Amino acid sequence: MSTHPVTWVEAAAGSAYDVDNLPYAVFSTEDTAPRIGVRIGDHVLDLGAAATALRPDLAPLLDAPALNPLMAAGATVWAEVRSWATELLTDTAHRDRVRLVPLADVTLHLPFEVGDYVDYYASVDHATNVGRIFRPDGDALMPNWRHLPVAYHGRAGSIVVSGTPVHRPAGQRKAPADPAPTFGPSLRLDIEAELGFVVGRTVPLGQRVATSEFTETVFGVTGVNDWSSRDIQAWEYVPLGPNLGKSFATSISAWVTPLAALEHARTELPSQEPAVLPYLREEGPSGYDIDVEVEVNGTVVARPPYASMYWSPAQMLAHLTVNGASLRVGDFYASGTISGPEKHQRGSFLELSWGGKETWTAGGEERTFLEDGDEVVLRYSAPGARGRIGLGEVRGRILPTIRPLPEEVE
Amino acid sequence: MSTHPVTWVEAAAGSAYDVDNLPYAVFSTEDTAPRIGVRIGDHVLDLGAAATALRPDLAPLLDAPALNPLMAAGATVWAEVRSWATELLTDTAHRDRVRLVPLADVTLHLPFEVGDYVDYYASVDHATNVGRIFRPDGDALMPNWRHLPVAYHGRAGSIVVSGTPVHRPAGQRKAPADPAPTFGPSLRLDIEAELGFVVGRTVPLGQRVATSEFTETVFGVTGVNDWSSRDIQAWEYVPLGPNLGKSFATSISAWVTPLAALEHARTELPSQEPAVLPYLREEGPSGYDIDVEVEVNGTVVARPPYASMYWSPAQMLAHLTVNGASLRVGDFYASGTISGPEKHQRGSFLELSWGGKETWTAGGEERTFLEDGDEVVLRYSAPGARGRIGLGEVRGRILPTIRPLPEEVE
Repeated sequence: MSTHPVTWVEAAAGSAYDVDNLPYAVFSTEDTAPRIGVRIGDHVLDLGAAATALRPDLAPLLDAPALNPLMAAGATVWAEVRSWATELLTDTAHRDRVRLVPLADVTLHLPFEVGDYVDYYASVDHATNVGRIFRPDGDALMPNWRHLPVAYHGRAGSIVVSGTPVHRPAGQRKAPADPAPTFGPSLRLDIEAELGFVVGRTVPLGQRVATSEFTETVFGVTGVNDWSSRDIQAWEYVPLGPNLGKSFATSISAWVTPLAALEHARTELPSQEPAVLPYLREEGPSGYDIDVEVEVNGTVVARPPYASMYWSPAQMLAHLTVNGASLRVGDFYASGTISGPEKHQRGSFLELSWGGKETWTAGGEERTFLEDGDEVVLRYSAPGARGRIGLGEVRGRILPTIRPLPEEVE
Repeated sequence: MSTHPVTWVEAAAGSAYDVDNLPYAVFSTEDTAPRIGVRIGDHVLDLGAAATALRPDLAPLLDAPALNPLMAAGATVWAEVRSWATELLTDTAHRDRVRLVPLADVTLHLPFEVGDYVDYYASVDHATNVGRIFRPDGDALMPNWRHLPVAYHGRAGSIVVSGTPVHRPAGQRKAPADPAPTFGPSLRLDIEAELGFVVGRTVPLGQRVATSEFTETVFGVTGVNDWSSRDIQAWEYVPLGPNLGKSFATSISAWVTPLAALEHARTELPSQEPAVLPYLREEGPSGYDIDVEVEVNGTVVARPPYASMYWSPAQMLAHLTVNGASLRVGDFYASGTISGPEKHQRGSFLELSWGGKETWTAGGEERTFLEDGDEVVLRYSAPGARGRIGLGEVRGRILPTIRPLPEEVE
C-alpha cells in the first residue's frame, strides 16, 4: 500500500471524506440493524458486514450497535481496523465484496454508550467574555483559571445524536430586580459550540493518566453542541455550578473522527503563562487546528477556531484523572465553548449578543437567543493528509416546551 | 398471608432485617455468579436461584448481576417480587426449596449499573454551616437555596460499593495566602454522610416527572459516603462547581432498601418558607425519619438525622426533570450531606472541625480531617412495621495516594 492510496469509491477522492479521513458511525438501514460504518465520500462502508464476511475475528467489534467494543479493544486494534478499512476502500479487488450505502439511505445513531460526561471551560476568550458579561466590575478570569482546566460533570443521559430535536427547557429564573423567581420556558436559550473527546480505555480508581498517554486513551473526537439555558443557569449555579441550565440536552455529531485522521491538524497551543504544574506539562504540538462554523437557519453566524484554545485535550485528560478518578470506555469530555479573540469567532449567543444586549442576524431575522423552530448546525473541518477533512455536523432544531406546565394545571 | 407474617429463618424475627425490611443486593459466593438476593437476619436469600427453580418468569430479573432489569420491570413487579420474597421467607413450605447463604460467606457487589449521578445540597443546617465557614461575612445561604434544591452532577464511574478502599486523592490546592497553587495528596480529606435514591424508570427527553410520581419512579434508597477533598474543592470550584474534589470516589451501601420498607419512616418535612413553586408542591408526609451514625475507627462521632432535611426526595426528583432532562433506569441522586441543628448531628468533618479549627476524637486520637488508614462506617436505620429496620452500612478505609506523583519523577 502506498502512503497515499487512491480510493475506488466514485467521487470520494478529493472530497472532505477521502480515505485520509474515515470517521466512524453507528448506522442502520431499512434492512439492517445498527452496526459500525466508516464514511467515504457520500457513502457509508458497512464495516460490520465486511467483518462478518472477511474478518470474522473483528465481527464482535464491528457488527455492534455501539463503538464501545471496538474502543475497548485498544489502540493497536484501532490502527489495525483503520488500516483494513483503507485497504477495503483502495484495493479494487474489494470493490464487489463490500457494501456501500448512500448516506441518504442510512439512519445514524448515537455512536457510543456514554459513561461520564465532563465539560471543560478551556477557551481563554470564552472564559474572558463570560467573566466580562457576568462580572463587569471584577477580574474577568477566576484566579484558578490559568492553573487548571476548570470543568464540571454534565448529564450523560441527555446526550443525543445530531438531528435530534430539542425541546425548549422550562425552569426557574430570577432577574436581579425580580422580587422572587418565576417558572416558565427558558427565555435565553443558547448553544455552546464545542469539540468532544471519546475515551476508549479503562483505567482503575487511584491511577493517573499522563498527558503522554492521550493518543492511546482517546479514540476520537466529535462535534458537540452543549445547549444552554442562560436564564435557568444564572439563577441556579451558585455555589455548585450549572445543572438544569445544561442537563436538558447535549447534541454530538454522529461521526467520531479517529485521532489518526487529525495528525495533520496538530498545532502548537497558544502559550501558557504562568507555567503549568508538572502533571500538565507535555511535549510537541498538542493543540488542534479545527475550524467550526455556526449556522442558524441557513446563515453562518460565527466561525470559532479550535486552534485558539488555551488548554489541550491531553491536559484535560491528565487533569480529569490526577485525583485518581477512574476511566471507562465511553467516557466523554468536551472542550467547553470554542471562542476566538474576534467577535465573529464567538461560539455562543451569550457572547455574540453580549449578554442579550446586541442582536445578530440569521435568515434575515434578528436574534439575541434562540426562538422555537430555529435550527442550528455546527460544522467542523481540519487539515488532513491531502486537503481539508470534514468532521461531520451537529444539527438540532428547537421545539416548544411540552405543555401543560405545572403552573398551567393549577 | 397475614399482615404480619412471621419468618421461619432462625434469629431473623425481631432483628433489624426481619421480613418487614428485605433490602436487595447483588451477591456472589465461591460457587455462584453474581445474582440478586434479599437480606433476612444474617443471611441472604438467593432470589436468583429461587426464581430459576420456582418462578422462571422472574429469572431474567433476579438471576442477574445488577438490579437494573428488576427495576426496569416497573413498580407493579417490584411489589410482586417483594410479596413473593415475603411468602418464601414466611411459609415454612418453602424452607427446603430455597437457598439461604450466611452473610459471612457472600461477596457483595455494586448493586446496580449507575446511569447519571446527581448530588443535592438539601440540608439547611449543612448549607448554613458551610456558608458560615466559607463566607463568614456574607449571608450563609445563597439567594436561590430556599427556592430550589441546589445540585450538581457527580462522577457515576467512581461510585463504588461499601468496603472498597479509597486512595487519598492528589491535586492542586492553594490557600488564600499562598502565592501559587501546589500539588500533592489532599490535606483535608472529608466525608459526606448522605442518603441516595435509585431511579427505576425510563422517562424520555422533554417530559417532566411530578412529585406525585416519586414512588413509581424511585426503586429504593442506599447509604452514601460522598468522599470529598476540601482543599482541592476550595481551589477548583469557581465558577463551575466541585469536580476533582469529589470525583475520586463515592461509596454506597451494598443494600438497596425498597421504598415499600420505609413506609413507616415517612414524616413531615420541616416547613418550607417561602412557599415553593407549583412543580415542587406535594401532598402528605414526604420526608423520611432515618437515623445515621458516623463511625470512625470504632467511635461514633456524629448522628445526623435525615428527618431534618429541608427538601424532600420527591422534590429533588421533580426538580431534576423539570427542564426536560430524561431519566434512565439506574440513575442515582443523593441528598447531599445530612446535618442536623446540633453539633453532634453534623455529617461532614468540615462541619465537625468547623473548617479545620476544632478537633474531634475517634479511637482515642484527635482529628480534623482523615488520616491514611482511618476507616469510616456510616450506618442507617429507620422505623419499620415492627421495630427499627437496618439500611446496611457504607464502609471505607483510606489508603495512601499511589506514588510516585508526577512531581516526584521530575
